Amino acid sequence: MPVIVATFSPKPEHVDEVREALLAAVPEVHKEPGCKLYAVHEAPGKFVFIEEWADDDAVAKHAASPALAEMLQKVDGKLAGPFDIVMLTPLPAGDPARGQLRP
Amino acid sequence: MPVIVATFSPKPEHVDEVREALLAAVPEVHKEPGCKLYAVHEAPGKFVFIEEWADDDAVAKHAASPALAEMLQKVDGKLAGPFDIVMLTPLPAGDPARGQLRP
Repeated sequence: MPVIVATFSPKPEHVDEVREALLAAVPEVHKEPGCKLYAVHEAPGKFVFIEEWADDDAVAKHAASPALAEMLQKVDGKLAGPFDIVMLTPLPAGDPARGQLRP
Repeated sequence: MPVIVATFSPKPEHVDEVREALLAAVPEVHKEPGCKLYAVHEAPGKFVFIEEWADDDAVAKHAASPALAEMLQKVDGKLAGPFDIVMLTPLPAGDPARGQLRP
């Protein structure tokens, strides 16, 4: 199942608005077909989504979803640069309960 | 619970050796106290660990663990640059089964 790490770096003066926009999208994205994991995290100066999808088709549908479009529209102009998307292939290993995002 | 995204970028000629070294450490790290998630992923030119730990003390113990030291010794000289560690705070939202790494 494809895994995605997506990083958004807000402008310092827009951190709270970006956090709000990202979190508002989460319940809608969870309803999208094939969404196994869509979780937001924060570090100083950045927000990081960790995502897992059932297959590439689910990723493609998410990329074209209204929830994502609305989120990107809300953060437009509020980021310090382009967001970064890393598409990953899991390499499950060790204890199945700890060695993969979604056992 | 602290979440970590750690990225290793192997030199092209050492991709297979680095993959082997990272995966060999996984079963040992899963036995460390407070390890909730320690999962390896691959993308072209990089390997990405996604980790979750019970608390900061578990992270500190892992940072000093024999399994990690052995892994870092094995990949020494085989990376294209320093590895990147991002320490994250989860922002759980939406469906609890999908909105956080470990519900």
